[in-house]
Amino acid sequence: MSERNIRVESIDRQAVEDQQVEIVERKGIGHPDSICDGIAEAVAGALAREYLDRVGEVLHFNTDETQLVAGEAAPAFGGGEVVDPIYLLIVGRATKRYEGQMIPAETIALRAAREYLESEIPQLTVGEEIVVDVKLGEGSGDLQEVFGEDEVSVPMANDTSFGVGHAPLTETEQIVLEAERRLNGEFAEENPYLGPDVKLMGKREGDKIDVTVAAAMVDEHIADMDAYVDAVESVREFVSSVANEHTDRAVDIHVNTADDYDEGSIYLTVTGTSAEQGDDGSVGRGNRANGLITPNRSMSMEATSGKNPVNHIGKIYNLLSTEIAESVVDDVDGIRDLRVRLLSQIGRPIDQPHVADVEVVTDEGVALGDVEGEVETIVDRELADVTGVTRRVIEGELSTF
Amino acid sequence: MSERNIRVESIDRQAVEDQQVEIVERKGIGHPDSICDGIAEAVAGALAREYLDRVGEVLHFNTDETQLVAGEAAPAFGGGEVVDPIYLLIVGRATKRYEGQMIPAETIALRAAREYLESEIPQLTVGEEIVVDVKLGEGSGDLQEVFGEDEVSVPMANDTSFGVGHAPLTETEQIVLEAERRLNGEFAEENPYLGPDVKLMGKREGDKIDVTVAAAMVDEHIADMDAYVDAVESVREFVSSVANEHTDRAVDIHVNTADDYDEGSIYLTVTGTSAEQGDDGSVGRGNRANGLITPNRSMSMEATSGKNPVNHIGKIYNLLSTEIAESVVDDVDGIRDLRVRLLSQIGRPIDQPHVADVEVVTDEGVALGDVEGEVETIVDRELADVTGVTRRVIEGELSTF
Amino acid sequence: MSERNIRVESIDRQAVEDQQVEIVERKGIGHPDSICDGIAEAVAGALAREYLDRVGEVLHFNTDETQLVAGEAAPAFGGGEVVDPIYLLIVGRATKRYEGQMIPAETIALRAAREYLESEIPQLTVGEEIVVDVKLGEGSGDLQEVFGEDEVSVPMANDTSFGVGHAPLTETEQIVLEAERRLNGEFAEENPYLGPDVKLMGKREGDKIDVTVAAAMVDEHIADMDAYVDAVESVREFVSSVANEHTDRAVDIHVNTADDYDEGSIYLTVTGTSAEQGDDGSVGRGNRANGLITPNRSMSMEATSGKNPVNHIGKIYNLLSTEIAESVVDDVDGIRDLRVRLLSQIGRPIDQPHVADVEVVTDEGVALGDVEGEVETIVDRELADVTGVTRRVIEGELSTF
Amino acid sequence: MSERNIRVESIDRQAVEDQQVEIVERKGIGHPDSICDGIAEAVAGALAREYLDRVGEVLHFNTDETQLVAGEAAPAFGGGEVVDPIYLLIVGRATKRYEGQMIPAETIALRAAREYLESEIPQLTVGEEIVVDVKLGEGSGDLQEVFGEDEVSVPMANDTSFGVGHAPLTETEQIVLEAERRLNGEFAEENPYLGPDVKLMGKREGDKIDVTVAAAMVDEHIADMDAYVDAVESVREFVSSVANEHTDRAVDIHVNTADDYDEGSIYLTVTGTSAEQGDDGSVGRGNRANGLITPNRSMSMEATSGKNPVNHIGKIYNLLSTEIAESVVDDVDGIRDLRVRLLSQIGRPIDQPHVADVEVVTDEGVALGDVEGEVETIVDRELADVTGVTRRVIEGELSTF
Repeated sequence: MSERNIRVESIDRQAVEDQQVEIVERKGIGHPDSICDGIAEAVAGALAREYLDRVGEVLHFNTDETQLVAGEAAPAFGGGEVVDPIYLLIVGRATKRYEGQMIPAETIALRAAREYLESEIPQLTVGEEIVVDVKLGEGSGDLQEVFGEDEVSVPMANDTSFGVGHAPLTETEQIVLEAERRLNGEFAEENPYLGPDVKLMGKREGDKIDVTVAAAMVDEHIADMDAYVDAVESVREFVSSVANEHTDRAVDIHVNTADDYDEGSIYLTVTGTSAEQGDDGSVGRGNRANGLITPNRSMSMEATSGKNPVNHIGKIYNLLSTEIAESVVDDVDGIRDLRVRLLSQIGRPIDQPHVADVEVVTDEGVALGDVEGEVETIVDRELADVTGVTRRVIEGELSTF
Repeated sequence: MSERNIRVESIDRQAVEDQQVEIVERKGIGHPDSICDGIAEAVAGALAREYLDRVGEVLHFNTDETQLVAGEAAPAFGGGEVVDPIYLLIVGRATKRYEGQMIPAETIALRAAREYLESEIPQLTVGEEIVVDVKLGEGSGDLQEVFGEDEVSVPMANDTSFGVGHAPLTETEQIVLEAERRLNGEFAEENPYLGPDVKLMGKREGDKIDVTVAAAMVDEHIADMDAYVDAVESVREFVSSVANEHTDRAVDIHVNTADDYDEGSIYLTVTGTSAEQGDDGSVGRGNRANGLITPNRSMSMEATSGKNPVNHIGKIYNLLSTEIAESVVDDVDGIRDLRVRLLSQIGRPIDQPHVADVEVVTDEGVALGDVEGEVETIVDRELADVTGVTRRVIEGELSTF
Repeated sequence: MSERNIRVESIDRQAVEDQQVEIVERKGIGHPDSICDGIAEAVAGALAREYLDRVGEVLHFNTDETQLVAGEAAPAFGGGEVVDPIYLLIVGRATKRYEGQMIPAETIALRAAREYLESEIPQLTVGEEIVVDVKLGEGSGDLQEVFGEDEVSVPMANDTSFGVGHAPLTETEQIVLEAERRLNGEFAEENPYLGPDVKLMGKREGDKIDVTVAAAMVDEHIADMDAYVDAVESVREFVSSVANEHTDRAVDIHVNTADDYDEGSIYLTVTGTSAEQGDDGSVGRGNRANGLITPNRSMSMEATSGKNPVNHIGKIYNLLSTEIAESVVDDVDGIRDLRVRLLSQIGRPIDQPHVADVEVVTDEGVALGDVEGEVETIVDRELADVTGVTRRVIEGELSTF
Repeated sequence: MSERNIRVESIDRQAVEDQQVEIVERKGIGHPDSICDGIAEAVAGALAREYLDRVGEVLHFNTDETQLVAGEAAPAFGGGEVVDPIYLLIVGRATKRYEGQMIPAETIALRAAREYLESEIPQLTVGEEIVVDVKLGEGSGDLQEVFGEDEVSVPMANDTSFGVGHAPLTETEQIVLEAERRLNGEFAEENPYLGPDVKLMGKREGDKIDVTVAAAMVDEHIADMDAYVDAVESVREFVSSVANEHTDRAVDIHVNTADDYDEGSIYLTVTGTSAEQGDDGSVGRGNRANGLITPNRSMSMEATSGKNPVNHIGKIYNLLSTEIAESVVDDVDGIRDLRVRLLSQIGRPIDQPHVADVEVVTDEGVALGDVEGEVETIVDRELADVTGVTRRVIEGELSTF
């Protein structure tokens, strides 16, 4: 066994699945906050890969502060237009000079943002309907940690911070997460009228689940009010069928409940995101690292998106604690709910957290002692591979929001 | 009794005070995220008061998206300088035209921001060391809710959102909150070398509390390294004495632990905030509405600062649930830990939440039935006075971060 | 004869062609100032045409204040890169609301700018190597002049302003103007190493003409120093041959004279414009309406590019006076040099200038009386067709810089 | 006699004073273009002095591209307000790092701009009614010219450029120049209702001079329409009396001729500048280096304001040629009109222009030979002292617009 300070404890609270009231939210990929998260993370990945490419190491950067200023639009059945463009400012730090070499950090950032937008919000014409601007301060220049192609060292924590992860997801969480992903996946592919700005709020009271969906419709593909009504109904049915794959509880789906057909007040957009109509956004205000907002669970306030994956302790620990929780639940039977918290200590290697605090709610009939050893082994193993998280973030394999 | 859907439940978890590991954080008033929170809320208050003054009603606005882009500084014992100014962009929506009248929303916002900065970060010369810019989109113009001087109606919820509040504070929470307030109050008044960017992280393991303080020192008032060392020690002693007022547990205070005196690497600043040296900030990324970040407790992701206090349900419910929790604990004996969650439903008056969910951990020997009635009465009364929260926010009486 | 106040006078000065020292300059289409002129005018044309399309009239706008903030680049033989992007801010006023209709002025402006850049500076990747931002204030909204599809009225002058035009061009002027156009035309088409940022300065002392050319070479198409030297020589030869088509005087061509081959200091660029390397630009700082800077001739300070072609008196009079001068010289024999100045008076129709002042230098043996009548007739006729200038500007047929 | 290439020539044209039609314009200190000129030059002076102070030499910079984006205002008798703030962007290059020292170029620029605005446009609250932003690129870093406290070398020309100066001023020019200066001086001091945005256009036809004045009135000091009418009349009388000090010709003064009292359309402002109400501005679009726009005279397009006074050849030559022309006319009798043009050649010391071309119109009865020698001596002497111009610009003794 390692020297790591791992504490595995039983906890006498109920599993979230068993609590009386549960609230879960997910902001879809086209929500203004998610756009910012997505761009911040796309920029971070692009910078990390370029640094590796050019100097063989990831240099200092953080791009976790993108700000979106909403535009104004005039949607119309069959196709309206963006009247005032959206403004998006990429903010952060990046190393621009390294051993005599210039690194075009801002150009890289702009390119990554444009490619991300063109791929994820294709209805939005970059440079016309959205202005993307950038202010990257000069990073400190002295590379603090070695994370190179050939050599990897475990960095020291440079901040007191923590990360938190949970597993398994409750049914409500699964529904909310899956429904958004599949709406923005298979459903949108077949039904181009659905924009990427989909927001889901799940509420469970006892065994009754309500899912409220706000779905931005794309006017170009909605000919008239009848088509809109059909679109809303299709979304409702689709989410309903997704839900039924994850629960036997009673589920009610509510789509675009703020609509008022008589007043013609509906959720119609030109580009599929409310950013075109007055909804500002910024990084770290939406989904946590596991893709959800879960007030029933402890959460970290750290923005995970855009942070440097080599040495930003908040980012690494949020992703790693989630991975650990999932690994444990995958491999160990008898666990009903699990929370992993990792707390750093300045100056210690990050694979040696100040404390790795694991709270376990066991299934009925299972004692902590039955699982404790297995859990600790997995936690220890995952901590040992902390740089694997970094690697996968750089390769774009881990989602941060 | 009212028709309000109030649920008071016992909960079998431990009170946070009794949990094994507890983590609590507070970003002081001069932290880049807090600067953004503070300006966003100052702007919101100024707009609300101006609207009342000019048209007798609070018109539509939201200014919850301020973004701070850090500068660069060259601090030096005795006084250095800001080399690259900080850039701060106030973002949001505001009504600029109302019944033929022009309302100078951006001028009001700039004035509020300047006054706030001059009052809270006095070392920072506005217009030289920080550029304050503003982009306020045109609000929808049609006043949705009536909140006037003479007449007040309870608005309808226009979003599905929730707020959450807790009481009483644990000892660790009290220490972290109080220490920051008094450092930035009485201590800074007597010791001008302490800048407003103070960040505290409290960690309790069992009965051992560690408080880590990162305190930005103002170079003008620090003559040399000896003075710096003395300053750090004074902060440590002060926080220690504050802590001992709130707990009998063992407390260790650590100040500026990342310093390396041999390398001359210390936390010295020109203006008293790390925003001058590469730390960006934005609204809603720091303290929750109760002034703390508490991963042991459920939290809302909603940015409270800058939101419209008349009709923004997330803001109102976060503030109100905190008020309710505090009222209950003040008035009802036998409660060890209390969580209040308010969940809105679109289209219902906000004094009629979809559910007001109160979780109670009672003291030993107290049953839920002993307190249930009293609790419900207080919740009901506070909900009935929901517009009182709005009034107090507008008057600047409630803190949002 | 009309009532127009046309004054045709003889002038005893020498024709510019006969003066001892003559200086002529032209900033090519890729010069930072010209980029701004070009975008300002492209935006103005796009707005005018959209207004006609949407509401049948040209509404109030002025977009004559584009500002370019240079970037930083690292050119290299075979292809370098832009390290810090260029920033371009389109500034002006435009009507955004008209009779209940929203007009997406900023979106139109961004699109026009992007299309212009992609067409004229194709090496520059819009959205990566240049950020285009826009701030168009709300125009006054009340349409001051009628310039519609069906009906055209001659507007009233709303300012005291003047325009000035000259004809014929001197040999030096012809050389400078033609050489730039053909370098950026046929030559660049065959020799992609030549960037659009070509600046020519012609100086004539007596019968000796020197033309100094600063030609930005595109690194992607320049393999090495030898290729660069060849490129410079090709430009020199080309300009020399153009010059010989326009004069029998002795002409010396100097290309990239600031180069220092030994130090490797040459005029190499990534994108073909010095805007990538520290040369800022703005509207109205470069070529006058006839495409030249001619300190031997009287010039107007008015920026012609970007102004509203319906009612901006400075723009119209600068273009019209040039047209008049050219018409007169085309049609009337015996004129060696001609200057036309049009001065407006607030409140008078613009086809009735306060004074149209025509200064004629006649050929030897020709008296003013021989040409006076003809000249006046042409001036009168051209003034009568003042709205024709507007029409052609809107259709993009007139160059403004 | 030196080796300088000085050409003194007689010219057969009329002196401007004797031409039939003359046009002269001056944009007062509060005009949007002049605000930009003034700030650009204030920033340049501040940077030059700081560089001298800190490193003993003037380092590389150019700040000649300030852009002003107009605001919106709602003036009212007795005091209105700025509704949308003005935005001003200081653009240029400056050396920020020199021999290991950081130089806070942007902080210096912001401070200089603020101080300039507070002094010259005191009605305008900086940071509320105008946002001042800054983008200064990194200068090349390698000091090209030595201009230090102890040692001064004459720099080499790094561009082919020219400057032009004239003397003496015509009566119309004197009137326009003097009237603006005294309106913004003694008159405004006694009559605070007059704002600094005063624009004068002088037109002389034969012996009839018309001066059109556009004078922005400050609403706070104008109680009602009667007060406005009185103010306009006072301005008219004052300008009239100034004019009569400079000419015996008939002079008519027209003030705010676009006013329409019946419609209540008058030139009333909150801050004394039209920048508050839709008039954008930028550097180099207004007055030439001698303070005037004179289409009867040859002019340089170079922006003089904001340029580096050590090595920017256009700035130095425009100022120097004006100084030379004035010196000659002061010291030599018999000159009716004089134009000095200085043309640089890349790589030659700037006190050795490629050509110094002096055109003289002599008084009747005076031959070129009578004055030629004296003129040449003065030109030679002034050229020898070229660095004196630099010195005086840095000390703020020379006006550039």
